[in-house]
Amino acid sequence: VMSTSWYDLKRKEEVFVNRSLTLENIKCYGFDMDYTLAVYKSPEYESLGFELLRDRLVSIGYPHELLGYTYDPTFPTRGLVYDTTYGNLLKIDSNGNILVCTHGFEYLKCGQVDEYYPNKFIQRDDTDRFYILNTLFNLSDTYLYACLVDFFTKSTRYKNCQKGFKHGDLFMSHRSMFQDVRDAMDHLHDTGTLKERTLKNLDKYVIKDPRLPVLLSHIKEVAKLFLATNSDFNYTEAIMKYLLDFPTGSKNPKKPWRSYFDLVVVDTRKPMFFAGGTVLRQVDTDTGKLRIGTYTGELQHGTVYSGGSSDIVCDLLDVRGKDILYVGDHIFGDILKSKKRQGWKTFLVVPELVKELHVWANKASESLGIISYFAVMFSHLICSNSIMVTYGMDLCYGKMGSLLRCGSTKTLFASQLLRYADIYSTSCLNLLNYPFSYLFRAPLVLLPHEAAVESQTKEQMAELSEHMLKTTNIKV
Amino acid sequence: VMSTSWYDLKRKEEVFVNRSLTLENIKCYGFDMDYTLAVYKSPEYESLGFELLRDRLVSIGYPHELLGYTYDPTFPTRGLVYDTTYGNLLKIDSNGNILVCTHGFEYLKCGQVDEYYPNKFIQRDDTDRFYILNTLFNLSDTYLYACLVDFFTKSTRYKNCQKGFKHGDLFMSHRSMFQDVRDAMDHLHDTGTLKERTLKNLDKYVIKDPRLPVLLSHIKEVAKLFLATNSDFNYTEAIMKYLLDFPTGSKNPKKPWRSYFDLVVVDTRKPMFFAGGTVLRQVDTDTGKLRIGTYTGELQHGTVYSGGSSDIVCDLLDVRGKDILYVGDHIFGDILKSKKRQGWKTFLVVPELVKELHVWANKASESLGIISYFAVMFSHLICSNSIMVTYGMDLCYGKMGSLLRCGSTKTLFASQLLRYADIYSTSCLNLLNYPFSYLFRAPLVLLPHEAAVESQTKEQMAELSEHMLKTTNIKV
Amino acid sequence: VMSTSWYDLKRKEEVFVNRSLTLENIKCYGFDMDYTLAVYKSPEYESLGFELLRDRLVSIGYPHELLGYTYDPTFPTRGLVYDTTYGNLLKIDSNGNILVCTHGFEYLKCGQVDEYYPNKFIQRDDTDRFYILNTLFNLSDTYLYACLVDFFTKSTRYKNCQKGFKHGDLFMSHRSMFQDVRDAMDHLHDTGTLKERTLKNLDKYVIKDPRLPVLLSHIKEVAKLFLATNSDFNYTEAIMKYLLDFPTGSKNPKKPWRSYFDLVVVDTRKPMFFAGGTVLRQVDTDTGKLRIGTYTGELQHGTVYSGGSSDIVCDLLDVRGKDILYVGDHIFGDILKSKKRQGWKTFLVVPELVKELHVWANKASESLGIISYFAVMFSHLICSNSIMVTYGMDLCYGKMGSLLRCGSTKTLFASQLLRYADIYSTSCLNLLNYPFSYLFRAPLVLLPHEAAVESQTKEQMAELSEHMLKTTNIKV
Amino acid sequence: VMSTSWYDLKRKEEVFVNRSLTLENIKCYGFDMDYTLAVYKSPEYESLGFELLRDRLVSIGYPHELLGYTYDPTFPTRGLVYDTTYGNLLKIDSNGNILVCTHGFEYLKCGQVDEYYPNKFIQRDDTDRFYILNTLFNLSDTYLYACLVDFFTKSTRYKNCQKGFKHGDLFMSHRSMFQDVRDAMDHLHDTGTLKERTLKNLDKYVIKDPRLPVLLSHIKEVAKLFLATNSDFNYTEAIMKYLLDFPTGSKNPKKPWRSYFDLVVVDTRKPMFFAGGTVLRQVDTDTGKLRIGTYTGELQHGTVYSGGSSDIVCDLLDVRGKDILYVGDHIFGDILKSKKRQGWKTFLVVPELVKELHVWANKASESLGIISYFAVMFSHLICSNSIMVTYGMDLCYGKMGSLLRCGSTKTLFASQLLRYADIYSTSCLNLLNYPFSYLFRAPLVLLPHEAAVESQTKEQMAELSEHMLKTTNIKV
Repeated sequence: VMSTSWYDLKRKEEVFVNRSLTLENIKCYGFDMDYTLAVYKSPEYESLGFELLRDRLVSIGYPHELLGYTYDPTFPTRGLVYDTTYGNLLKIDSNGNILVCTHGFEYLKCGQVDEYYPNKFIQRDDTDRFYILNTLFNLSDTYLYACLVDFFTKSTRYKNCQKGFKHGDLFMSHRSMFQDVRDAMDHLHDTGTLKERTLKNLDKYVIKDPRLPVLLSHIKEVAKLFLATNSDFNYTEAIMKYLLDFPTGSKNPKKPWRSYFDLVVVDTRKPMFFAGGTVLRQVDTDTGKLRIGTYTGELQHGTVYSGGSSDIVCDLLDVRGKDILYVGDHIFGDILKSKKRQGWKTFLVVPELVKELHVWANKASESLGIISYFAVMFSHLICSNSIMVTYGMDLCYGKMGSLLRCGSTKTLFASQLLRYADIYSTSCLNLLNYPFSYLFRAPLVLLPHEAAVESQTKEQMAELSEHMLKTTNIKV
Repeated sequence: VMSTSWYDLKRKEEVFVNRSLTLENIKCYGFDMDYTLAVYKSPEYESLGFELLRDRLVSIGYPHELLGYTYDPTFPTRGLVYDTTYGNLLKIDSNGNILVCTHGFEYLKCGQVDEYYPNKFIQRDDTDRFYILNTLFNLSDTYLYACLVDFFTKSTRYKNCQKGFKHGDLFMSHRSMFQDVRDAMDHLHDTGTLKERTLKNLDKYVIKDPRLPVLLSHIKEVAKLFLATNSDFNYTEAIMKYLLDFPTGSKNPKKPWRSYFDLVVVDTRKPMFFAGGTVLRQVDTDTGKLRIGTYTGELQHGTVYSGGSSDIVCDLLDVRGKDILYVGDHIFGDILKSKKRQGWKTFLVVPELVKELHVWANKASESLGIISYFAVMFSHLICSNSIMVTYGMDLCYGKMGSLLRCGSTKTLFASQLLRYADIYSTSCLNLLNYPFSYLFRAPLVLLPHEAAVESQTKEQMAELSEHMLKTTNIKV
Repeated sequence: VMSTSWYDLKRKEEVFVNRSLTLENIKCYGFDMDYTLAVYKSPEYESLGFELLRDRLVSIGYPHELLGYTYDPTFPTRGLVYDTTYGNLLKIDSNGNILVCTHGFEYLKCGQVDEYYPNKFIQRDDTDRFYILNTLFNLSDTYLYACLVDFFTKSTRYKNCQKGFKHGDLFMSHRSMFQDVRDAMDHLHDTGTLKERTLKNLDKYVIKDPRLPVLLSHIKEVAKLFLATNSDFNYTEAIMKYLLDFPTGSKNPKKPWRSYFDLVVVDTRKPMFFAGGTVLRQVDTDTGKLRIGTYTGELQHGTVYSGGSSDIVCDLLDVRGKDILYVGDHIFGDILKSKKRQGWKTFLVVPELVKELHVWANKASESLGIISYFAVMFSHLICSNSIMVTYGMDLCYGKMGSLLRCGSTKTLFASQLLRYADIYSTSCLNLLNYPFSYLFRAPLVLLPHEAAVESQTKEQMAELSEHMLKTTNIKV
Repeated sequence: VMSTSWYDLKRKEEVFVNRSLTLENIKCYGFDMDYTLAVYKSPEYESLGFELLRDRLVSIGYPHELLGYTYDPTFPTRGLVYDTTYGNLLKIDSNGNILVCTHGFEYLKCGQVDEYYPNKFIQRDDTDRFYILNTLFNLSDTYLYACLVDFFTKSTRYKNCQKGFKHGDLFMSHRSMFQDVRDAMDHLHDTGTLKERTLKNLDKYVIKDPRLPVLLSHIKEVAKLFLATNSDFNYTEAIMKYLLDFPTGSKNPKKPWRSYFDLVVVDTRKPMFFAGGTVLRQVDTDTGKLRIGTYTGELQHGTVYSGGSSDIVCDLLDVRGKDILYVGDHIFGDILKSKKRQGWKTFLVVPELVKELHVWANKASESLGIISYFAVMFSHLICSNSIMVTYGMDLCYGKMGSLLRCGSTKTLFASQLLRYADIYSTSCLNLLNYPFSYLFRAPLVLLPHEAAVESQTKEQMAELSEHMLKTTNIKV
C-alpha cells in the first residue's frame, strides 16, 4: 500500500493550467452534471453499470458463464480504443501509434502486435472500425469487451479465429459482439434501468460534498451560472436535489437547487449542442414534461429548458464564448467541441487525476527520491534512468497503465487534454481554492529547440544553473 | 545588428526531437526536393515570386501604383491565415484564438480586432473563408495580400468598406482580390515562368552545398533512399543536377544525380500521394516525357517514375511505413499527411529556425543573460518577467513575429510541428552531425500537474535543486 | 356514389407494366410484409394511427381542443411534401414545381403560393426542410399536420406568424410542431402501442385473403421465395400466422406460415438493407429473441433471420439481382433502392390504385363517355377539353387529388413509380391472374417527337387511322 | 440512301414538348453558345477534335500506328458510358441496365456481357469508375476510346488482360489510357489548339444561318435576352461576330453582335454557375481582359461580364427562374442543373434529332408503311411486330444505335431529356416557327394503368375507336 505524501494531498486540490486564464475575465460559468457536479463513486457505480450490461447480454442469449465475471477497477483505463475487427483494446498516442495492446486480459507482445498491425499504427480516422472509449461511463463496457474476449478465447466450445469465434454454424464476430454491447447500452438507457438503480441508492453511488453549494453560491456572486446536461429533467432534478437541497449551516439555509443557476438546460445533446443544436423548449417542472412550442422570451429565473444550443445559451445569458468557463468531464463532448466550435474557456474534470498524482508523487519520491522527479527537467543528463522509472510506474496506475502516459509517450487522451482544456483538476470543487481574481498562469513549455542544450555545454550548464539559483535569490 | 553567439552557431546544426527516434531502425530515407534538398535563397527567391505575382496583377488590370511595392522579408511569417472576407492576416494558435491581426501593414489593436471577431476566435475548419499560408512558397503572396490592402486603403480613389473597396460601380472585394492572387499563382505555375527564371540563374536562387552528395552517399550505405517531389521531371532534373552532379574530390568523382537514389518519383501530387495517389508511370529521361501505361515490374535503378502513391513506394522499396524517415518542409503536405495517414517517421526542415534560434539565444543571453533563458524552467518563480521578455522578443523575428510563438503562446504552426514532426532542424544536412546508430531522444515534457509545485514549496524546491545538482555529480 | 363499371372491376385485377418483364426468368420472389402481404384496412388503420398520435401530442401538452379532430380519409394523399418552415403541405412534380399547396385545410391560391414560393418551385434536395410523406403509414401524420395548422390558425389565443404561431413568450414554430409529431411517431414505435392495438383486433385492421396462401404456394412451386420486413419477429409472427395459418380446404391443409418461404428476414432496416446492411443473426423462434453471433452456415429452412443485407439474401438463396422480383409498397425503401442499388426487378403495390382506376374509368366513361378517355391519345386534337376533364376529375380522388396526377401533370410519386417500378398493381394477389410464363409487355411510350404530328396533317391522320383499323383486322 | 419524306422535313422544324409551356409567360430568354447558337459542322468538327486528341496521344508516346485511325461519324452516339475499369462503351437505361456493350469496335454478346457485368447492370452513381460522355464535344473522345481498345486488342505486341494490355513490364490499364485521354483533352483546352484551328477556318467548322439574327431580334422585341457561355471572351467574340455581324438586308443593317443581348456572360463555369457560381467581373472588350473587382452597379447594355451565377443573372435582369427559358445543348450542365436547382424553363437543342426523325419516319413509312408507326399506339394489339421494327431500326442510326432508344427501351439520355427539358428541337432556330404567344402543349402521356385495356375488350375498343373518330368529326 502506498502512503499518501504531503505533496500528493496538496496537489489533489490544485487546478492545473495548460493555457493561461484570468478568472477575473470570466463572466459566466457553465457546468456539466454527470461526473462533473455529480461525481459517481468508483468503483461502485462502474460495477453497477458492468453488471447491468453483463446481465443484459446473458438475457439475450450469451452464455451464463459470463455471470462469473465481476468488475475489476484495476483493469480499464479511460480513453482506450476498441478495434471492432480484432477485438483488441488499444492504448494509442495522438498519431495513432500503438502503445499497449490487449486481447482479453492478455497483453500482446511486440511480435503479436505486428501480426494484427504490421505498422504498429492505426488510422484512427476510421471511426467505423475503431471506437474510442472516451468517457467515464465507458469504463464498464471497456471491461466487458475484455471479459467477452477472455471468455470465448478460453472456452473449449469455441474455435478462435482472427475476427471472432466459431461454434458450428455460429460465428461470434468481434464486430457483432461490439454491436451487442452497444445495443445493451442503448437498452439500459432507453429503459432507464441504470438511472433507476442509481436514484434508489444515491448515497451508495453519488458523492455528496457540502462544498458544492458553497462553490456555486460564491460563483453566483461574481458571475452568471448555468447547468447544461444531456440528462433528462427528472433525473437531473433528483440528482441536483440530492447534491444541493440541504441546509449548509445557519448562514446558508436550504434553498432550492434551481435557485443556484441563472439557466438550467437539460437534454442538451452535446456535442450537437455546440453545433446546430435543437429546438429550445421549456420544461414543466411540476410534471417533468416538456412544454410545447419554442421559448422565445427573456431568460426567466427558475425556469428549466430542454434542448437548445450553445448559441442560444450565449444569447439568453448575454455573454460571448470567450467569457464563459465551461466545466465538464467529457473530453470530446464537453471540452473539445466547446473549444473548437465556440472558443469557450474550458475546465476539464479528471477524477482519475487523484490516482495519477498519487502514483507520480509516490514513485518519484519514494523509489528514487524527489531527484528523479526533478531529473526529467535535465533529461539530457540522466534520461535513460528516468525512462526506466516512468515505465516502472505504469503498472501502479492499473493494468492498462496511466490515463495520460505510457512511459515517456503521452496518450491520445493526454494530447487532447493539453490541446483543448485550458485548465484541469481532480474536481470542480478545487475552484474554491482560488480567488475569483486569480490568474491561472500556464507554465512556459519550451519547444525542443528552445530547451536544447548541446552536450558539449553540460559543464557550462551546471555553472549557469548555479548562477541562476543565485540570481533568482533562492537560498541554496 | 545582433552578433551570433557560439550557442547559436551550434544549435543551427542540431536536430531537435519531439518524439524519440532510433536512426538505427530506419531502413529507408525519403526526401522532398523543394526547400528540403533544394533550399531557395531568401529573400532573393521570395522577391522573385512576389514580383512575378505583382506584375501579373498589374497586367490583368490592377493599378500601376502596385509596381511601387517591393518584397520586404521582415514582414511575413509562414503559417499566417488570410481571412478572405475581411482581408486580414491572422496569426492564430491551434484552437483558432487570434494572436496577432494585421490589415495591410497596420496592426489592429484589441478593440479593432473585436469589431471583426467579437470572440477573438475563428472557426478554422471554415477553409472556404480562412486560407492557411502554410508553405515557404506562400511568403510571396502573404506579403502581396498586405500590399493590396495597404494600397487600396490609402488610395483616395477608393472608398473603404468592411468587405473590400468601392470605386464607382466597381467593388474590389477582399474575396475577389484573393481569387485574383490565387489565379495569378496558377498562371505562374502553368506558364512555368517562375521555374524558368529560377533555372536561368540557379546560383542566385538555389543554395548549393557540397555536403549534400556526402549526406546522400552516407545514407545510401546504410539504408534505401528515395526522392518524392511534386515538381515535374524537367525541373527536377535541372535542380538535382545542379545540386549533385559535380566532383566532390578525388575520392568522390562526379556521378549522375539519379545514382544517389533507389527510387525517384516526380509529379507526386502530395498530399494526395499519401491517400489514394495516382497511376504510376515511367518517365523517359531522354525526353522528359511520361511513358504511356502503368509500370508494374520490379524496381529498376536509374528509372524515374511519375505519380504513384506512398503505398506504391513502400511496395517497390519493400519497406513499411514506420521504417521510413521522410524529410520535408511542408507541414501539411509532407509531414502531417505522411504521419497521420501512413505512420511514417517525419523530419521537418524549418529554414526559419536559423533566425528563431538566433533571436532566442541573443535575446536570452544579451538582454537578460542566459538566466532568463533558463528561467522559463522555473517559470512559476519568475514567470511574469519571462513573459515580458518573450513578448519583447517578438519584433526581433520580423514584423509578424516568430513562426512559432506569440509571447508564451504557441502558434498553430508550432502545434502542428510538435504533433506531426518527430524531429526537425534548420536543414536536412544536419543529419550529417549524427551517427546512423543515433538515438534521438525526446525531452520528457511534463504535463502541468506533473510539473506543478505548490507555491508553498518554493523553498523546498530550492533545496531539492541543490540536492539534485550534487547527486548528479555535476560540478558547480 | 359512383357505380363500379365493368372495366373498373377488371382493371383492379390487372398488373400494369412500365418495363417489360418475363416472369419465366424470375428465379426468386421477395415480399415486403406491411401493406404488401399484410394490407391494412383503410381508413380504420389510418384512423387508429391518427388517434394515437393526436392523443400523444395532447399528453405532452398540446391543447385539448385537438381531441376534437378525427381522421378524414378524403383529405390526405400519399407522397405529399411537408414544408417544415411554413407548415404547408405541397403536391409537387418530379422537378419540384408546386402543383397544389394547402395551409391547414385551406387551398392556397396562385398569389398566396407566390408569397411563400416566389418561383412556385422548391429545391427538393433540401431534405432538412422538406419532408416527403412517402408511405401509407404517413397518411395519419399528413392529416395531423393539417389539423395542427388548422387549429392554431383559427384559435384566437394564438397570433399567426409566417413560421408558426405566437402566444405570449411561446412560439409554436412549424418546425417544432413537425419535430413533436416525429417524436410522437417514434414514441408510438418504441412503446409498441400501435402494434399492440393492431394485434388485439386483427380482423378490424388487417385484410385476410384466402388467395394469399394460394399465391405463395404457386410461387414456391416455380421459384424461391423470401420475406424481408422491417418489422420485428414477434409482430411478423403474429401477422403472418393470421394471414397464412388456416386450412384452405381439404387439398390444402393448414401448414405453418414459415413453411411458405425459403428465407424469412425480419428487422431488415430497409433502405439500409440494400446498401451495407447489418449483421445477420438467427432468431430463436420460441422466444422471439435474437441468437447471438452471426449466422454463417448454409440456408436452413424454417429458420428466421434478423438484419443482414440484400447481398446476403442473394448469397443464401444463390440468385442474382436481376433474377429477383421484389414486391413492396414503399416507393423509396422497397422499390427505388432495390432497383437503383441492386438492379432487382420490382413490383410496386399501390392500394390507392383501386380508387384511381375507379375515378378514371367512371369519370371517363360516365361524364364524357369513353371518348374522352380515348381522346388523350389524340390530345393534339381536343386537348383543351381533356385538360378540363382531368382537372375536373381531381376532386373525385379526395381533397388533395390523385396520388399520381394533378391535371395533366404527373406527381413526384408517379414519376418515381414510372422510373423504378417495373410492374405495379393494386395488390400482389393479382399475380394469380397471370401464368408464371407470362411476359409483362410494356406499352411502347413514344417520345414527343416520335408521336408528333403536324397539325397540317390532321386529315391525313384520320385516313391513316382508318387504314390502320382495317389493316389490323379490327371490325369497325 | 434514304429519301427524305415530307413528314421528315417538317418535323425537323418542329419544337417538341415534354411539359406544357406558354411562351407568352416567358419574360427572358437565355442562350448557351457552343452547339446552341454556334452549331458546329458535323463530322468536320468532331474529326478535327479526334485528330488533335489522337496526335497528342502519339506525341506523348502512344504507338504511331494510332495515326492510321480516322474519325468515323457512324460509330459514336452521345450519352454512352465509358467503363474505365474494363474499357467498354456502354449504352444504358436510366436505371443502369446495360442495353449495348462494345469493346473496341466489337459488340459483346449476351454471354460476354455477363462476364463483365453478371447482373447486366451498373451502379451509375459510381462516377469514379463510370464516365458519362454527355456532350457533343465528347463524340471525339468516345470514338478515340474505341480506337485505343481496338488497336491494343489486335496488336500482337500486347497481351490482352481484363483490365488492360500488357507488354513486358508495361501495363496499359484502361484506367490509365482513360486518364491520358482526359489529360490530352485538358491540354487541347489549355493550349487553345482546338479553338485556334476552329477560328482559322470558321466556314469549315461553324454553321452560319441568316435566321439567327432574325430570331434574336424578334425575341428582343418581346423579352429580355442573355448569353451565358463557358467559353472565354475572345473566342465568344470571334464566334458571335461571325454568326451575327453581317448585314441581313436593307431593313436590318449590320449591328454589333452584343447589341442583340441585354446581358452577355462568359466564363460561366456551368454547372457551378447554377449553384454557388463565382465572382462577377466586367470584361474589357477592347483587350479581352477581365476588369478587376466585382461589378455591383446596374446592368449596363453592351457590357460583357465574366463568371457570376444564375442568381446574379436573375438579379441583374430582374426576372425570376420560372420566367426564363434557357436554351442549351448540354443535358447535364445546361438543362438538368438549371431545372433542378433553379426551376428555369428549359429548351434542349438536340442536333442528332435530324437523323433520329429521319430514320424514324423513313423506317416507319417506307418499310412497313405508316401503319407500323401508328401501331405503337395500339401496341397491345401488334406489339411483337413493332418491337422487331424498332430493333431493326437501331442500326440505321449508326453503329451504337439511336441517341434515345434501344428497341423499346429508352436510354439514360432520353430519360433525362424527358425529365429535365420542357421542350426540345433540332435547332433553336425553330422557335421562329411559332408566335411568341404560343402555348407549347404537352401530349398527355398516360400511365400504364390509365392506358391499359384488357385483351378481352379488344373488340369493344375497336367499336369505341370508330365512335371516337366520328365524334371528333374526323372524316374517315
